[in-house]
Amino acid sequence: MRAGVRWHLLLPILMLGASAFGQDADDSKPAISNLMNAKHPRVYPDGRVAFRLVATNAAKVQLAGAITDKPVDMTKGEGGAWTVTIPAPPAGFHYYWFTVDGLQVNDPGSDTYFGYGRPTSGIDLPKQGEDFYFPKDVPHGQVRMQWYFSRTTSAWRRAMVYTPPGYDENSEARYPVLYLQHGAGEDETGWTRQGHANFIMDNLLARKEAKPMIVVMDKGYAYQAGTNTAPTNRPSGGMNSSVLSPSTFESVVIDDLIPMIDRTFRTLPDRKHRAMAGLSMGSRQAMQIALRNLDKFSWIGLFSGATVNGDLDTGYNGVFKNAKEFNERVHLLYVGVGAAEPRLMDALKSSDDLLTKRGINHVTFTSEGTAHEWHSWRRHLHDFAPRVFQ
Amino acid sequence: MRAGVRWHLLLPILMLGASAFGQDADDSKPAISNLMNAKHPRVYPDGRVAFRLVATNAAKVQLAGAITDKPVDMTKGEGGAWTVTIPAPPAGFHYYWFTVDGLQVNDPGSDTYFGYGRPTSGIDLPKQGEDFYFPKDVPHGQVRMQWYFSRTTSAWRRAMVYTPPGYDENSEARYPVLYLQHGAGEDETGWTRQGHANFIMDNLLARKEAKPMIVVMDKGYAYQAGTNTAPTNRPSGGMNSSVLSPSTFESVVIDDLIPMIDRTFRTLPDRKHRAMAGLSMGSRQAMQIALRNLDKFSWIGLFSGATVNGDLDTGYNGVFKNAKEFNERVHLLYVGVGAAEPRLMDALKSSDDLLTKRGINHVTFTSEGTAHEWHSWRRHLHDFAPRVFQ
Repeated sequence: MRAGVRWHLLLPILMLGASAFGQDADDSKPAISNLMNAKHPRVYPDGRVAFRLVATNAAKVQLAGAITDKPVDMTKGEGGAWTVTIPAPPAGFHYYWFTVDGLQVNDPGSDTYFGYGRPTSGIDLPKQGEDFYFPKDVPHGQVRMQWYFSRTTSAWRRAMVYTPPGYDENSEARYPVLYLQHGAGEDETGWTRQGHANFIMDNLLARKEAKPMIVVMDKGYAYQAGTNTAPTNRPSGGMNSSVLSPSTFESVVIDDLIPMIDRTFRTLPDRKHRAMAGLSMGSRQAMQIALRNLDKFSWIGLFSGATVNGDLDTGYNGVFKNAKEFNERVHLLYVGVGAAEPRLMDALKSSDDLLTKRGINHVTFTSEGTAHEWHSWRRHLHDFAPRVFQ
Repeated sequence: MRAGVRWHLLLPILMLGASAFGQDADDSKPAISNLMNAKHPRVYPDGRVAFRLVATNAAKVQLAGAITDKPVDMTKGEGGAWTVTIPAPPAGFHYYWFTVDGLQVNDPGSDTYFGYGRPTSGIDLPKQGEDFYFPKDVPHGQVRMQWYFSRTTSAWRRAMVYTPPGYDENSEARYPVLYLQHGAGEDETGWTRQGHANFIMDNLLARKEAKPMIVVMDKGYAYQAGTNTAPTNRPSGGMNSSVLSPSTFESVVIDDLIPMIDRTFRTLPDRKHRAMAGLSMGSRQAMQIALRNLDKFSWIGLFSGATVNGDLDTGYNGVFKNAKEFNERVHLLYVGVGAAEPRLMDALKSSDDLLTKRGINHVTFTSEGTAHEWHSWRRHLHDFAPRVFQ
């Protein structure tokens, strides 16, 4: 604001979420993910969701994004308000937006989350009775923003670091570390904001269902110093390639991030106490980086993405060639998908068969009824975390 | 994404910031605040800024927000791209948006920041040679997200807590605490994201120009438990009222936040080592809460907002009545504004006169050339922090 603003006149309007209010007259309620006082989007007891956007001069408005299989037309009503009510989407977290005469626009009633390479609206639709990822009356860990300089990229980076309850009080204790990666188009904030990783860990730890651990969440993109075109972290060969190849992000993790974390936090700095997991693109990164650096990692989690396939004698730098050796070195190979991801379910099945036939110890997981979205990955973490460092 | 997404096909598009790329053929550069690979907005060497939005079907597009005194028409060009180049705005951080046929839309090329009660685009225009708020090759503190349950509001809240470099290593050291508040429509993320408070502190501490301190940044809104209408934290009587009155947010700070911070962090838990400061609405909150609780605070910072005026015998619960007593109790009363805030500059002048006449020790500060925006407040913090806890 350029001139002295009369903030006390603005405040009541700001607090009402001016563009987002509407009727309260039925049995619907604002979504739990709404901004303060925003009345839309609204959720009905049967799960239907009503969206609303005031766009007085628009000719066509659609609801779009991951909340719906294909864009849904909205209808113009009183006061230029466009509305639509959609059938109950699957429980979980869904990115979405409005398309207003062809332009992608976020919902002023919802918060935004970094997804699709930019801040994007999201709605959280909990499943009745499933509350493992909500804050509860238990001790809470902290999520710490930790800045560090990467020599690989010659730039400052920020890692988000979960420290478990008691970390500051138990000033002699040392902890294992889980490196946990987001998906394509997301960033280091995803696992806490969309994923609620901290609350999932708090709740598991309160019930003593997981070992106290540090969780490090970094941004999965990296430019080699001196370049500024596309990030060179992109795993070559697609999600299911059995070729393991180096990446700039691997250099960041191995040469910059792990040393910084081991220097800054009270870690147990060896392979027995270091895990890497990730979702979608992040699962491919976890597989590549962990399997190429088995001197540094011995626990691996692949959520909704990478699976194991192809020729296990020649693929994956030969790490699966000798099952006995692999089983001794790798304490956990965990591969999961959402049950509503048909292509990945097929890949999981064939991966499971292949690994079983080869005698490679592994664990598979499926998230019932959820697809390629954060609720699948919350459940993955909730199931995975109790299995690591045991 | 509902079905198995082919993320490897999406990624190159995401990374290019599809809606935001344009020509590179002149001497302009992407703003430092742009999202990764977004080519717009662009800044020219003389400070002009070029904005661009692709909105193929729009009839009228304007640039609006704090970047400009009044909305500026944009011009439609090739490929449905609307563009405008504006004269050099003042250096600093400016919220902005596009108005597309009357609808407020964020810029897909810029990140969003919580302002105006919702995520809003912002652009950072540094002033040549002024780098006190950028990350440098110095030890970095952490910013910790700390969740706590507020009995006042009967809800979970999140505070952002800056711990200085060395906090974990010096496990016996105790620290003074600065409580630092954002402005109206903003939230607990403002002081680090828009304000760079952590980098300002890191740089001051590296030069030993401030005492190592903990900085607590909470959200300045609070509903009394059982209510969910408007927050009752709004200070009564407007910015310059000399009436001090209780608020729900004061209860949160005094009854919930301070006890949690003193329990969780290694603080020096007394009034000599506790400061409160804030900007705009937050300055009014700092004045109200600190002056009403002088048993808890002895350092006060008012940035671009509250000033002292009226009858000092009867106003402000009489705290200014006895200058000698006030000067003994309050170690610092700091009042500042941006030089480009004419109304507040007048209030600062009369406040300075009044306090001087009364013999109340105080410090005034003005930020040259900046208005009611975060660059003013970065400079306030940079000037204020070295003065507290000395």
